[in-house]
Amino acid sequence: MILLDGNKLSEIIRKEIAIRVIDFCGKDHRPPHLAAVLVGNNPASQAYVRNKIKACEEVGFASTLIKKPESISQSELLNLIDSINEDPLIDGYIVQLPVPRHIDEVEINLRIDPNKDVDGFHPNNFGRMALGLSSFLPATPMGIMMMLDRYQIPTDGKHCVVLGRSNIVGTPITLLMSKKSKPGNATVTIAHSRTQNLSQITRSADIIIAALGIPYFVKADMVSDGVCIIDVGINRIDDANSSKGYRLVGDVDFENVKHKCSAISPVPGGVGPMTITALLENTWKAFREKK
Amino acid sequence: MILLDGNKLSEIIRKEIAIRVIDFCGKDHRPPHLAAVLVGNNPASQAYVRNKIKACEEVGFASTLIKKPESISQSELLNLIDSINEDPLIDGYIVQLPVPRHIDEVEINLRIDPNKDVDGFHPNNFGRMALGLSSFLPATPMGIMMMLDRYQIPTDGKHCVVLGRSNIVGTPITLLMSKKSKPGNATVTIAHSRTQNLSQITRSADIIIAALGIPYFVKADMVSDGVCIIDVGINRIDDANSSKGYRLVGDVDFENVKHKCSAISPVPGGVGPMTITALLENTWKAFREKK
Repeated sequence: MILLDGNKLSEIIRKEIAIRVIDFCGKDHRPPHLAAVLVGNNPASQAYVRNKIKACEEVGFASTLIKKPESISQSELLNLIDSINEDPLIDGYIVQLPVPRHIDEVEINLRIDPNKDVDGFHPNNFGRMALGLSSFLPATPMGIMMMLDRYQIPTDGKHCVVLGRSNIVGTPITLLMSKKSKPGNATVTIAHSRTQNLSQITRSADIIIAALGIPYFVKADMVSDGVCIIDVGINRIDDANSSKGYRLVGDVDFENVKHKCSAISPVPGGVGPMTITALLENTWKAFREKK
Repeated sequence: MILLDGNKLSEIIRKEIAIRVIDFCGKDHRPPHLAAVLVGNNPASQAYVRNKIKACEEVGFASTLIKKPESISQSELLNLIDSINEDPLIDGYIVQLPVPRHIDEVEINLRIDPNKDVDGFHPNNFGRMALGLSSFLPATPMGIMMMLDRYQIPTDGKHCVVLGRSNIVGTPITLLMSKKSKPGNATVTIAHSRTQNLSQITRSADIIIAALGIPYFVKADMVSDGVCIIDVGINRIDDANSSKGYRLVGDVDFENVKHKCSAISPVPGGVGPMTITALLENTWKAFREKK
């Protein structure tokens, strides 16, 4: 069984990016610059943004954290987006989700300049991806593709079962895995809460990408020997033994499933760091393709 | 076995559209206006465009056919697109595909105003569709959804196998069928030329949507009893008995498969007319939502 180690792989790729920054920027160019907009005090969001900023430092990118109070109005946030769009010193940026309930997330997303949309959630980028054109890919599916690529997991003609149909993971990874590309070129089944006979479908899978957000959902009797599993779930469950009072687990019952796998990604330390590494790659792309 | 009669259903829906036009436009409003750009003399394209123009007349839409010679340059075609984008009297338009080889189809597509893009191929519309936002849906998958809806084919939780991954049919119908919508909410498998064990997959399908462009590809032994089949193929095969020297057949071996089906769409007279009816619906939408 190969452990798809997102930490180790990210370390390698981030070193490559750091070298690119040194090679290209030298003394003459400013480095790539990522901004992150964080609204409110959600502890998980704070941790995610902190990790993204830290990753920027690691590869030599500039970064800016723009913190706004929970009470920010829709129009204030839109004005902020407009000013970032126009700022020539910011190459790419993200608005950390979720935003507070009174904020219209769709309107915010539509306002982001597609050329700076390193999260790849603007319809223009999402549509370009779906049509097979060059675009910013959403960071999590992009991180998964990088993982499959670097670990040389065979995907061509394989049956890939995607669990979950979210805009953030399930839908875009279905598109990417089905395209005539490498990795990709897989027969893809997209399954979700309404799916009947799910175990029968997962047992027919060569590759399972689990992105449901349900702890330990994928059990040993649901998979066949030799399957490759990418676990995208990041679920907090209570743990009295942890100083934080919780621990993170994936959508896969890792301990009982791993013996059947040809390869499997752990949680934490699998897709999570790859997502941030993909964000760095997108920021690099935004920097280099700047119009 | 229910024959999914695209001609009959289109007639019903087009009458509904015609009534909407009369009700809304009366004497005070000009009717919706569709334009079609046709480059060159491809006989199939000429026939398709003719049918679209005829359908406009049927429902009381205005229409304009803009014919350009095969020799038109990229910049001349782009200028034409710009002028149509700016024409306040044209609500929606299509550029009939395929365009000649010297024309960059992607650049043409990107130049179309998304608000007039009634073919739904601009990344902005395609992305909005993929994200589940309101958009112009590509006409063929939209026509299929209308057909499933009006014939009340159960799709919720069903296994839908899509054959083909084109941007025009396979990819968008996969997106639409997997969304939490009605019709939709299906478990969808997208299969293509690289798929292994295809017959096993198609035999597990409750619904098959065949869009490969290979005559008679789906045979009786590839499907299970009770399947619903939507045949999207429009293939010309030689036929000495026809005055034209050819006839149109689908991707399904209709005569040998139909006995096993709960429902099946014929070729011709199935998805073809529904595609044009969907185009009319999109033109109506463009007219009513005009900015």
